[in-house]
Amino acid sequence: MNPEPTDRELAEPHLLGTLATVGVNVEYVRAHGDTLYRLDEEGREIPVTDFAGGYGALILGHNHPEITALARDLLERQVPVYTQFSRHPAANRAAHLINDIIRRETGTEEPYFAFFSSTGAEAVEAATKHAEFVRSQRLAALATGIDGNVASARAAVAAGRAEPGPDVYERAGADTAQAADQVLEHLVARLERHNDEVLSRPPVYFALEGSFHGKLAGSVQLTHNPGFRTPFAAMAARARFVPMNEGEALVKAVEEERAVVWDLVVEDGRVGVVERPAPVFGAFLVEPIQGEGGIHEVGREFAERIQTVCAEIECPIIVDEVQSGMGRTGSFLASARIGLRGDYYALAKSLGGGIAKSSVMLVREQHYRAEFELVHSSTFAKDGFSTPVAVRVLELLEADGGAAYSRARERGERLRLALERVREDFPDVVAQVRGRGLMLGLEFRSTSDSPSELFRFFAEADVLGYVLSGYLLREHDIRALPTASAVNTLRLAPSIGIGDEQIDRLEQALRNVALVLRESDEQALAP
Amino acid sequence: MNPEPTDRELAEPHLLGTLATVGVNVEYVRAHGDTLYRLDEEGREIPVTDFAGGYGALILGHNHPEITALARDLLERQVPVYTQFSRHPAANRAAHLINDIIRRETGTEEPYFAFFSSTGAEAVEAATKHAEFVRSQRLAALATGIDGNVASARAAVAAGRAEPGPDVYERAGADTAQAADQVLEHLVARLERHNDEVLSRPPVYFALEGSFHGKLAGSVQLTHNPGFRTPFAAMAARARFVPMNEGEALVKAVEEERAVVWDLVVEDGRVGVVERPAPVFGAFLVEPIQGEGGIHEVGREFAERIQTVCAEIECPIIVDEVQSGMGRTGSFLASARIGLRGDYYALAKSLGGGIAKSSVMLVREQHYRAEFELVHSSTFAKDGFSTPVAVRVLELLEADGGAAYSRARERGERLRLALERVREDFPDVVAQVRGRGLMLGLEFRSTSDSPSELFRFFAEADVLGYVLSGYLLREHDIRALPTASAVNTLRLAPSIGIGDEQIDRLEQALRNVALVLRESDEQALAP
Repeated sequence: MNPEPTDRELAEPHLLGTLATVGVNVEYVRAHGDTLYRLDEEGREIPVTDFAGGYGALILGHNHPEITALARDLLERQVPVYTQFSRHPAANRAAHLINDIIRRETGTEEPYFAFFSSTGAEAVEAATKHAEFVRSQRLAALATGIDGNVASARAAVAAGRAEPGPDVYERAGADTAQAADQVLEHLVARLERHNDEVLSRPPVYFALEGSFHGKLAGSVQLTHNPGFRTPFAAMAARARFVPMNEGEALVKAVEEERAVVWDLVVEDGRVGVVERPAPVFGAFLVEPIQGEGGIHEVGREFAERIQTVCAEIECPIIVDEVQSGMGRTGSFLASARIGLRGDYYALAKSLGGGIAKSSVMLVREQHYRAEFELVHSSTFAKDGFSTPVAVRVLELLEADGGAAYSRARERGERLRLALERVREDFPDVVAQVRGRGLMLGLEFRSTSDSPSELFRFFAEADVLGYVLSGYLLREHDIRALPTASAVNTLRLAPSIGIGDEQIDRLEQALRNVALVLRESDEQALAP
Repeated sequence: MNPEPTDRELAEPHLLGTLATVGVNVEYVRAHGDTLYRLDEEGREIPVTDFAGGYGALILGHNHPEITALARDLLERQVPVYTQFSRHPAANRAAHLINDIIRRETGTEEPYFAFFSSTGAEAVEAATKHAEFVRSQRLAALATGIDGNVASARAAVAAGRAEPGPDVYERAGADTAQAADQVLEHLVARLERHNDEVLSRPPVYFALEGSFHGKLAGSVQLTHNPGFRTPFAAMAARARFVPMNEGEALVKAVEEERAVVWDLVVEDGRVGVVERPAPVFGAFLVEPIQGEGGIHEVGREFAERIQTVCAEIECPIIVDEVQSGMGRTGSFLASARIGLRGDYYALAKSLGGGIAKSSVMLVREQHYRAEFELVHSSTFAKDGFSTPVAVRVLELLEADGGAAYSRARERGERLRLALERVREDFPDVVAQVRGRGLMLGLEFRSTSDSPSELFRFFAEADVLGYVLSGYLLREHDIRALPTASAVNTLRLAPSIGIGDEQIDRLEQALRNVALVLRESDEQALAP
């Protein structure tokens, strides 16, 4: 009765097989700070230094003692976890803490309202849903206004109080021989057809090339990587992708997506047509520093351009700080440093303290719609476990006058200098060091022109970064992974507790990797 | 520098205000089993019996001692929580346990592959994404095949080996005076236009009226409640909703959504047109018992009809057991009892053991695509905290020969009988008792014809269930909430540990509520 051998992998076997080919299919059994432990064949713990940092979820490291203590305390006190539709003071406390930080870092006095959920992708989708809620109200108001103006124009023409103007004739495709009311009806038919088409379009989302905003049905369409996105393109509204830090391209893209609706006015006995901007824009999504895209920073000038353009076209800005936020770059918000202010913010990952799952979407008061709270919800949101954890994480980051942010800057600088030294000594194999604070990327040059067939294969199959991950783990007991959509870039995202000795060991290991690459050492990287 | 008073609610203030109007805006401070505690004005704990059950997340009750013990143990052992791209044996163990159960309950020998995520909505979206992944491959294969056949037909006509048949002339809108190759090109242009239109349509999803499949950008379009869905209709592919248990309506809906593509064949010197079914169907989503829709069961006959129709049109079935699954209805899968077999299953809620956030999508081997594992992922999925919790929940449900399922049946029967007695004694105010096991609904009659203006207002504002929730909490220390999309129905979803005395107290409280309704007792329900 049990045809499945229990050792057959049923939870993503293909992925595990892929991990096995590069040798990162290990099981970790214990973790604290930036150290993971795997077991050797005799069952002894082998420490591994973790620079992957849970893809950004571990700003405080694995099993931070204060988070663990809080979790134990919550269990001890039998705190209720799932009590939807009741009062959740911890959620409000977290919202206030984040508001205090936003106020300090951006200088705004405007409050932001908080909607909690469980994952980063959920927070991004909550933001896009809220933005669409606002847009749907604007669409409805615009349509109602035009309907009213059409009725007024009809009444005026019927009563002989107004005549269609020349633009009405032109747009109606009518000539002056036709009766005024017929001409108006021709125009109204065209106006309705035009407006219906414009107002029923899916929202236009702008996102940057290289963006990563999640992989749910909606959010994956905002994620640039075509492999992740295109198989699902028919499922949800698609994004228009704009190249990073190219202001003119941004302006051009916006111009191409703009649309107008037709409206009627009656003035001085004339019915005229006016064009009004249609609210076709869903949102502009920005990661201040792209994580999965290969650690690329939005520049201050481009941020200003986004802000100016979006204000002009009334397109809300969703700042996705899921990976860059929570202090990793030396401030709580990476966007604050470049002067980018979000109408929405999305936070997650380290908000869960490395143990829980928590995310939050924040919307500024000016955009906030109270009724959205009655239509959006989730069983697992605002729960009594992850929300107090989020509060404690925020308190830990803010403690001692923001010592955690200084620490992220100082540790990040030390790490960056180590990476820069490797790049300087191996400019032939290391292309660039990028990033800020504890969100750094080390880009290797492509091996597509290597004398080694194996190395050329790594380039062709776009697996170089994973192969290097396997080598670092096998030979140096270091865990580091490439960014998902730019596989030649290793991402280094340790906790603020990363030690000098750990950074030094990483530097030595990377020098060794660089040498292997320089020498096309097939034996070292052979599967 | 702090213009926000700290007591201002920033985490969904409007929702909290709404809860306050009916008096359910209480804070719970401790919980175990089916008992929550709030504090009175002197700070003493007041026990509240919880029949809301975390919207289905608490099949084992609040803070079940074995789950709490496991959680403490995981913290004690410093188990790594976020180590993506490594081996996760607990995920595999959970997948095997669920496979064993599916095999037992459905009789199938076919394995199901497991994809873990964090919330029920995420599991539903993972299933729809996987189904779309399969469909996109079918679309591509179909288009490639037709392209090849068009090329063959052109070559055959050019070489004089074949002539366009009469159906080609007809569909090309050509007459026999025209040259064969021109006629073929006319047809090919029409064929391509037709096929492009059909193959680029968004996928057609079928869901049932009253359905609830989540509130993310994609899943909310599969959720029937127009208030939740329509503001976001432009964001994602929309569903076609089919009335529950109406086989003929289902067949009619499917017929209306069917589409064909045109293909060419060359046979006996003739080019002919054949129509092939286009894979336009995304998925058919079914909750075996609708939770948010008011506790409505899919009948066995309708389940058979869904199965037959979907097999015929090659539309995968996603069985959403997020609320009905995990043993609540007396078997692990509520769908197994009605003979409904899913190509996909979605599980969540109680899978998290009442403390963690865990969900899983399962896909049968025949539909499973290994490559999907390389394009779908989530930072918080397969984590080292929620996954061992999921394993323990499954073990607890399966222990002692499935005593938990018997317990759900037996407790559910006792609860149902209590509700039935209330209905029998108050047929004027209680309309129906519905559901199975520990997923029961008590529907009150509308108060729209009440002599009381206040009671008529409750009906008009569609808040009766919430008003009764407030009354039950205030007067009887009982927590029970209406189903989200059918507000006259109170949902009762306690844990398998619910006691006789607690059920008896509920019955007394509901008798009191029924009397208040019968007598239109405004004073009792006044805000």
